[in-house]
Amino acid sequence: MRISELAERSGVPVATIKYYLREKVLPEGERSSPTQASYGEAHLRRLGVIRALVDAGVGIAGVRRVVAVLEDPPENPSDLLGAANAAVAPAFPEGMDLREANALLTRMGGSPQACFPDQVAAVAHALSALERAGFTVPPSVMDAYLEHLSALAEAELAATPDTSLEDAVRYVVLGTALVEPLILALRRAAEQIAASRRFGAPGD
Amino acid sequence: MRISELAERSGVPVATIKYYLREKVLPEGERSSPTQASYGEAHLRRLGVIRALVDAGVGIAGVRRVVAVLEDPPENPSDLLGAANAAVAPAFPEGMDLREANALLTRMGGSPQACFPDQVAAVAHALSALERAGFTVPPSVMDAYLEHLSALAEAELAATPDTSLEDAVRYVVLGTALVEPLILALRRAAEQIAASRRFGAPGD
Repeated sequence: MRISELAERSGVPVATIKYYLREKVLPEGERSSPTQASYGEAHLRRLGVIRALVDAGVGIAGVRRVVAVLEDPPENPSDLLGAANAAVAPAFPEGMDLREANALLTRMGGSPQACFPDQVAAVAHALSALERAGFTVPPSVMDAYLEHLSALAEAELAATPDTSLEDAVRYVVLGTALVEPLILALRRAAEQIAASRRFGAPGD
Repeated sequence: MRISELAERSGVPVATIKYYLREKVLPEGERSSPTQASYGEAHLRRLGVIRALVDAGVGIAGVRRVVAVLEDPPENPSDLLGAANAAVAPAFPEGMDLREANALLTRMGGSPQACFPDQVAAVAHALSALERAGFTVPPSVMDAYLEHLSALAEAELAATPDTSLEDAVRYVVLGTALVEPLILALRRAAEQIAASRRFGAPGD
């Protein structure tokens, strides 16, 4: 198909598609003449992935890193998660106090060595933001986080497709980044549902 | 204390504090002379809250809405969550298909009426981003999300402090927004731990 049809079917404007081509997150189409290129279903799928990442708040540099992992996946599946995470996680300053973060990860049944430094740093960063705001997560709630997020991760891992490496990569990389808005939205709704059960519906 | 000491103790530059004063998210200090004002511990705590929200990606308009809820909380605690959510949630386009989102909320044990329209819209928006990316959450994983996020929300609600309304408001409003980075960071670490158990440590 031509770029105009690609734009129509994907809902992404032609100018934006050209930007993705320049940024090399979307592969070139097949040249059919010096001024025209032809695009296929793979381009449409890739555009869907890019738009979903952008919607999830991932910047163009992060999109480029995700695309690189999709195109050239690491061999050990454990490294996949690290690559997916590195692709979409912000960089954290060095020299943070990692003790509390390490203690939490140990309680989730992992050695801190099982995790990438960025993942430990992300936990430490979140903890220090809470501390700066004077907000303490009650111990019973922290217990619930560790228990239920571990169970959730086990369920996600158990469902990794074994049809092909490409399917597994796609599932892990996209599942890490794209599912986050769903998890946060469901948590807020679940809180509202729990509050309604306790205090009555909103506006009562 | 003077603004210079407030800056030093909070780690927020004087120019940024002045910006927060102009934006009215930080209350004026007590005038000690026409050119000088004096700030107290309440200003320090408020600055901590503002910084944590900004770190969590909340814009100045969202910070202003959170501050408004903290200063003038609604009477029904169920409305609190809605207000907290509205303060930090992005606006969603109208006219989205809400059927699948409503079905998920019903499965979490709530009527869709128990939730604010923004919360239902956030779930629908996350689902449509996944669909656009061609990513399907396997049914067993969706079951795990609903079950474990409900349990997590129940634990959070059960720990709401009953010492004062102000404490409860602070807990609910800040807990909704500020804990999100912690939950996402713990989930990623939990995935890595589960993957290491399954496939060996990274780099093996």
